[in-house]
Amino acid sequence: MYHLGIDDGEFIRGTVPMTKQEIRILTLAKAHLEHDSVIYDVGAGTGSLSVEAALQSPDGHVYAVERNPEGVRLIRENARKFRAGNITILQAEAPDGMEDLPECDAVLIGGSGGNLVRLFDALDAKLRRGGRIILNCITVQTLMQCIAYMREKEGYTYEAVQVQVSRLQQVGAYDMAKAHNPIYIVTCIKK
Amino acid sequence: MYHLGIDDGEFIRGTVPMTKQEIRILTLAKAHLEHDSVIYDVGAGTGSLSVEAALQSPDGHVYAVERNPEGVRLIRENARKFRAGNITILQAEAPDGMEDLPECDAVLIGGSGGNLVRLFDALDAKLRRGGRIILNCITVQTLMQCIAYMREKEGYTYEAVQVQVSRLQQVGAYDMAKAHNPIYIVTCIKK
Amino acid sequence: MYHLGIDDGEFIRGTVPMTKQEIRILTLAKAHLEHDSVIYDVGAGTGSLSVEAALQSPDGHVYAVERNPEGVRLIRENARKFRAGNITILQAEAPDGMEDLPECDAVLIGGSGGNLVRLFDALDAKLRRGGRIILNCITVQTLMQCIAYMREKEGYTYEAVQVQVSRLQQVGAYDMAKAHNPIYIVTCIKK
Amino acid sequence: MYHLGIDDGEFIRGTVPMTKQEIRILTLAKAHLEHDSVIYDVGAGTGSLSVEAALQSPDGHVYAVERNPEGVRLIRENARKFRAGNITILQAEAPDGMEDLPECDAVLIGGSGGNLVRLFDALDAKLRRGGRIILNCITVQTLMQCIAYMREKEGYTYEAVQVQVSRLQQVGAYDMAKAHNPIYIVTCIKK
Repeated sequence: MYHLGIDDGEFIRGTVPMTKQEIRILTLAKAHLEHDSVIYDVGAGTGSLSVEAALQSPDGHVYAVERNPEGVRLIRENARKFRAGNITILQAEAPDGMEDLPECDAVLIGGSGGNLVRLFDALDAKLRRGGRIILNCITVQTLMQCIAYMREKEGYTYEAVQVQVSRLQQVGAYDMAKAHNPIYIVTCIKK
Repeated sequence: MYHLGIDDGEFIRGTVPMTKQEIRILTLAKAHLEHDSVIYDVGAGTGSLSVEAALQSPDGHVYAVERNPEGVRLIRENARKFRAGNITILQAEAPDGMEDLPECDAVLIGGSGGNLVRLFDALDAKLRRGGRIILNCITVQTLMQCIAYMREKEGYTYEAVQVQVSRLQQVGAYDMAKAHNPIYIVTCIKK
Repeated sequence: MYHLGIDDGEFIRGTVPMTKQEIRILTLAKAHLEHDSVIYDVGAGTGSLSVEAALQSPDGHVYAVERNPEGVRLIRENARKFRAGNITILQAEAPDGMEDLPECDAVLIGGSGGNLVRLFDALDAKLRRGGRIILNCITVQTLMQCIAYMREKEGYTYEAVQVQVSRLQQVGAYDMAKAHNPIYIVTCIKK
Repeated sequence: MYHLGIDDGEFIRGTVPMTKQEIRILTLAKAHLEHDSVIYDVGAGTGSLSVEAALQSPDGHVYAVERNPEGVRLIRENARKFRAGNITILQAEAPDGMEDLPECDAVLIGGSGGNLVRLFDALDAKLRRGGRIILNCITVQTLMQCIAYMREKEGYTYEAVQVQVSRLQQVGAYDMAKAHNPIYIVTCIKK
């Protein structure tokens, strides 16, 4: 049976960076997905978030937007591996290619390519009231752009946490702490 | 509708320490609960983990073990508030009082009172194969006792992560990082 | 004898926030103080950084700028307690009151009041080539303003680290992790 | 002029793990070195701690104990590069080879090879009253052994912090957080 939080090693990965298990769990929990949610995964990378979102919302649909051809291939392979049939892949750099998508309930942003303001403006036209945008970021600039946008824009609230995970690796008789990079998770709620 | 990860402020709290939202989400995800899981919550505190476990497993049952009378009262109040009818509270210091409980699929340990070896031995007699013990700890000693036990005991594997969450508080025009204490989450799987 | 890194409990403290020992050590090390450095401590708070800077640069001088009267009093008391005679206190909100100060070799910024651009512009007129500005910050906005300024301004390089310290408190037979808030330390070097 | 906290990139490094700048600064500050301290550096690795200790105590002496031949070579090269003439290298696995060393004021332990109890017993015979042992560790077992020893042994106090540093890497227009592994720094003081 599927449980939220697939092990990282289960995903097919190339050289594309992948959201790690604990961050994926928190991101999906904060998205408040329903069984029939419509979800965009922007900068979908390996598709690990898309796959878990699709499995959390089996009667819903995930639109995975990814510009990188290797990423597109990995999303397709991971969707097949985990039998997530409700994923549509768009090879594009968001917000390009999103015009014709249906309204959505949740947006997961792992990579934004750069133009976060244009992206948020486009998403605002698609996101239902009560919907949520969950942004994962490792750069100061992306965090700041998101916060600045959400503070200025009417109709949104946000909360942000920084999460730092270290995994204890079992090496012989020892458990050694191995750090993952710290991630900011920003939850933006459309009122 | 219920979503994993109730806001901390929603729980009724006295002076009893409470597992924070992000740690609760990760703990419950790592427990791999099913709709009908039988769960022990050891050192249940305010009952925040019990409540969410009960809501994740609506056809299952949660046994919340807590020695502190204030804790017992809070668990009862929180169970009522969140309409989690499938929680039974035992006022005891685990492993005392656990003899007559049914077999379980998952154990959540937020507080152990001290005798972790005796607790693990007692739990081992109750936990089904494939079941999981998820230990949250903030002390070096508890972490070390758990790891030492799991390394020595046949029939278990474990993984451990340390999670450090900081919340960005919105204070006027600023977002200030406010640290939560770091927590080790150890996932022990009975083979 | 004086050693860098006075214990936090040694300082006289009111309700004013104080830079913690480990952050103080790193801040002062990154300032590359000489025995005769001229140092500004902006937003000096309790004076913990001023005192240690003064003791590191016994033939130099520290100008502690602090707007809060309670802070001014604490700086004075701490300077006396640690026999740091080479501290001059300015009750002002920087950059106000800094016009008549001599050129400096290092600037420590623990609190900026808000107008970081105006502060940096004023400091630039005072800081010698090769001098260093060390900014401690806990807000996203201050970090971003500093980075944006240093990226745009010619003649500076910077490096930044985030430091998260947890102290193990000895409580009975246990060592419990107690988190301090994470701090960004930005080191700006004038070429 | 020498300042505490040489940049990591300045050290000659092979494949030997190296204590990172911020941890080196804190370790040396907590050692309370005097100009004439006698210091042991146990598990000296690349010699980064030995070099900085030698430069902090120019009238003292550093005994660098390292079993790995590549480490021995790197310590020698780094001592030469930074003109630290007051370092003696012992190729041995501590506590072996330490019998004939003079009494010491401070001990830095970056790597212990495994037998921490035997090491502490041997060090206790050499460490002056008021002297300090600073242990850096990344494994739960080493931390626990150190704490257990210091709690049981009469005549010592200890304090411990966990330090997690993330460096902001400047990548194009972005500053990306890159985590170092978290380190426990235990300061043991002989009363």
